[in-house]
Amino acid sequence: MKKFNTSPISGMQELLPPAQAIFNDYKSKIAEVYHLHGFQNIETPTIDRNEILFAKAGGDTEKQIYRVIKTDESAEDSTQSLRFDHTVPLARYVVEHESDLSFPFRVSQIGRNFRGERAQKGRFREFYQCDVDVIGRNNLPIFYDAQVIYTFYQAVSAFVKTPVRIRLNNRKFISGFIKAVGVIDYAKDIYSIIDHAEKVPEGKTIEFLHELQIPEDTVVKITTFINTHGDIQTIKSMLKEIGIDTDAQPDDLLEGLTELETVMTELQKLGLGSDEAEIDLKIVRGLDYYTGTVFEGILPAYPEVGSIGGGGRYDNLASNFTDQKFPGVGASIGLSRLFFILNENNLIGNGISENNQLVQPVDYVIIPMTTEQNSASYVLAEKLRKEGKSVDIIPVEKKLGDTMKSAARVAKFGIVLGENEVKNSSCMVKDFATGDQTLMKL
Amino acid sequence: MKKFNTSPISGMQELLPPAQAIFNDYKSKIAEVYHLHGFQNIETPTIDRNEILFAKAGGDTEKQIYRVIKTDESAEDSTQSLRFDHTVPLARYVVEHESDLSFPFRVSQIGRNFRGERAQKGRFREFYQCDVDVIGRNNLPIFYDAQVIYTFYQAVSAFVKTPVRIRLNNRKFISGFIKAVGVIDYAKDIYSIIDHAEKVPEGKTIEFLHELQIPEDTVVKITTFINTHGDIQTIKSMLKEIGIDTDAQPDDLLEGLTELETVMTELQKLGLGSDEAEIDLKIVRGLDYYTGTVFEGILPAYPEVGSIGGGGRYDNLASNFTDQKFPGVGASIGLSRLFFILNENNLIGNGISENNQLVQPVDYVIIPMTTEQNSASYVLAEKLRKEGKSVDIIPVEKKLGDTMKSAARVAKFGIVLGENEVKNSSCMVKDFATGDQTLMKL
Repeated sequence: MKKFNTSPISGMQELLPPAQAIFNDYKSKIAEVYHLHGFQNIETPTIDRNEILFAKAGGDTEKQIYRVIKTDESAEDSTQSLRFDHTVPLARYVVEHESDLSFPFRVSQIGRNFRGERAQKGRFREFYQCDVDVIGRNNLPIFYDAQVIYTFYQAVSAFVKTPVRIRLNNRKFISGFIKAVGVIDYAKDIYSIIDHAEKVPEGKTIEFLHELQIPEDTVVKITTFINTHGDIQTIKSMLKEIGIDTDAQPDDLLEGLTELETVMTELQKLGLGSDEAEIDLKIVRGLDYYTGTVFEGILPAYPEVGSIGGGGRYDNLASNFTDQKFPGVGASIGLSRLFFILNENNLIGNGISENNQLVQPVDYVIIPMTTEQNSASYVLAEKLRKEGKSVDIIPVEKKLGDTMKSAARVAKFGIVLGENEVKNSSCMVKDFATGDQTLMKL
Repeated sequence: MKKFNTSPISGMQELLPPAQAIFNDYKSKIAEVYHLHGFQNIETPTIDRNEILFAKAGGDTEKQIYRVIKTDESAEDSTQSLRFDHTVPLARYVVEHESDLSFPFRVSQIGRNFRGERAQKGRFREFYQCDVDVIGRNNLPIFYDAQVIYTFYQAVSAFVKTPVRIRLNNRKFISGFIKAVGVIDYAKDIYSIIDHAEKVPEGKTIEFLHELQIPEDTVVKITTFINTHGDIQTIKSMLKEIGIDTDAQPDDLLEGLTELETVMTELQKLGLGSDEAEIDLKIVRGLDYYTGTVFEGILPAYPEVGSIGGGGRYDNLASNFTDQKFPGVGASIGLSRLFFILNENNLIGNGISENNQLVQPVDYVIIPMTTEQNSASYVLAEKLRKEGKSVDIIPVEKKLGDTMKSAARVAKFGIVLGENEVKNSSCMVKDFATGDQTLMKL
């Protein structure tokens, strides 16, 4: 009889071993791609000072931060909290260890972050984020924006079994456009309208714009902008069509356009064609610290899934902690959410199948009939482990049949070692999936 | 100018990238050994219910638990805390998911745990623990005690560059002995005296025993017991010498002795000889939930280091959560502390050397002279990555010399790609350590 509610806290992802094995495999694949692309891994502490964590957070994020207190402390004593992303602790890390780092600092972080959000399906309060960032000192060429996007694309494509597409935009370009069409006074509202354009019917977007008392022809320009996606020529044609001359416009429009063009050109050289990467002017990426490139990944075959991660350029990572300038560009894969979504859409390959049939996490179970066969079992186990096989040894407790059943629940193959097998130096290997038996020399 | 203290909170381990790479390597090696030995990995949430976490914790541990509250909550609202070990969440996990698990459940957990201890050298408030456990339903053969110890030994030996020795004892044997020499009334004190025997001079141990008013001949028996270590014959001879007849004594003395013998026999079959594993009657392992086998690992060449991890048998993992019986045996490597200790003793191989010289975490840096060579750089990078090499691309910002210096700080090899290199389809690979240059075909 249970004495307690033993379910995990709501909003926490707790997996059974076969699902965990797949999750771990995805995490390793991301780590491997990040490593191959020259990113150095670091880990920051889960707990950090409130003055560090609250310096950058605002609004909803601030309300979601988990503070920590020791058992004998009151809430007012709290001086520390759980990190809510990798970026803020990274800023602290870069400032603290600056003299030991080489810039541009290419860094990866894979770990759990925490936000006390209202629990919803696929939104977790504790979640894995897998980040890459390139941090410059004083300046950082736009070259790296393309490298980070490419690394993100490769990392996601290493385990997502359906094509991935990058949608790219640029904050300078958006803000230049807002100035060019003369609605700078409503800049914040317009950002928000663009950001939400995909989540509401188009009529609603127009309605929002009308609410701001924006002239009709400007509304048309803005909706045209929002709905434009494609290559750099498409963007230039759109500007021409709605009568915007980039040369005559504020610097940031042209600067943003040039950056978009550079990133697209590099992505093409990196092998990402129009199916894999396009400019999409709807992309804003909510977080307000982005200052240039913004991007996200989607699965074109699964439009309802939405963004599977993304990132962008921030001009000053550590402005709250130092007067020195550290521009950066980064990408983040929200692995806990992505894993949940892939599973919901049956995209977790030969993993957890719909009928809850389990993948066998162990390769071999060796069953010594009596303790007399323990030594032989150990020798065989070590031989198989040297070949990279995961090997379990389960001695017979009562009936061999029960032990076999137990073995079949975790392993792909079973091997029974009795007196005869050891004497003859050979045994039968049973494939639990097919029932086939094959002879193996000991 | 720094505006904040950007050091990590005291008691947190924050590593530079080269040290982090070694730490990650050790963690992977442990994970690999656990996997090869048939343990299935799981992760439990970092945050759990107070009623779960405080159910088992007592005394100092309870005071060290970090509670979490949201920004708008008071301390009294706290219903959740950070896990302080892997064992309590595992108990919850086993009860919660029992019907989906196969028993004996062989499980590994690698992750960060939290204790608000007073910060000391090598003691961390956030620390990695790497655990394996075998959990039975209703019963669990002593066979698994040896398997867990062997797995622990193999995992530690996979990265510790000096021999490891297992010291084994058994709680039943200790408690049987305490009864046999007639000091059962002081059992708790005697456990504590045995547990501390190694940390105080021998005279002090005798003094403690005298303080309990224990007769002199019994004091001699107890100190003889404490100082005995070796194989099972040594233990049996010691018992004879001090006049204890196991057949005439309480059951647990003989039961403990038999278990010790079984575990030692299996360890020998597994290839651990007297240098690798011995019985040591000083070993108690502080935590009070152990009920049979207890063990720890030490580095014989570094006696001052003390225990590098250990574990033991607990008869009832989840007694606080359910009436069902789940006996288990487990081992834990405290990796954060172990890494710190190994580094202090210069046992981190070609890693962080004393003069703080950094190991190069990246294999190759490719330097395109101008954007004209970006495409060629990308092709070469992908070719090297396919060979498993970590490759960074750093464009020349101002002077090639500066870029080379920057490359030499992170990478083993540097490759400059200019117009001629691309035209001739060949480049020079510079070994930054030796200065040697070798030709490579593109």
